Amino acid sequence: MNKHEFQWSSEEKKIARQSFEKAYENEMEEIKFLLLEKTAKANTPKDIWAIHDFLFKRRNSIDEKYDYRYSKLILVFSRLIKENYISLEELTGLSDEKLEMIKSILSLE
Amino acid sequence: MNKHEFQWSSEEKKIARQSFEKAYENEMEEIKFLLLEKTAKANTPKDIWAIHDFLFKRRNSIDEKYDYRYSKLILVFSRLIKENYISLEELTGLSDEKLEMIKSILSLE
Repeated sequence: MNKHEFQWSSEEKKIARQSFEKAYENEMEEIKFLLLEKTAKANTPKDIWAIHDFLFKRRNSIDEKYDYRYSKLILVFSRLIKENYISLEELTGLSDEKLEMIKSILSLE
Repeated sequence: MNKHEFQWSSEEKKIARQSFEKAYENEMEEIKFLLLEKTAKANTPKDIWAIHDFLFKRRNSIDEKYDYRYSKLILVFSRLIKENYISLEELTGLSDEKLEMIKSILSLE
């Protein structure tokens, strides 16, 4: 078993799912806020296409980032914490070894 | 010479350039208006990605449509009139044969 592959109890799965969805909602809220801000300021065609580029990048990033496979979840949560979409505290209830692994990854990057 | 290929006098080129740019400005204004409207109404992630899809389609359409080659201009203006970004009257000053060709194209579609 790869060191990133943990067993997930049903309670942990519930915490993971909630945190995952909360991070997604937070990121989408951020995108919406930035979209409103950019749209309000847009004057030129260049500004409008910059909004298209912005949405394109964020959509690709989200498609790639929100990968709910248990084999990926420790890395996904590490990234979501690093990017401030959730906090480590919100993952309270996961096993100590999972939380320690996340902390180790965060300290490396 | 292809029947769509006309000679353009310098006066006609000036009228063509002005009308072409005006159509582009009008279309970009429309896109901006729709973008503001859609953004104000956006609530869900689906709404936000629909805005991305909207900008993607309009950008591709614009890239393809605004082709300022004299060999294409009669067809380009016909389309821009059909889509209401300029009026036939704004092309006053082009030769009768060009205006007649545009009218013929518009009557066909």
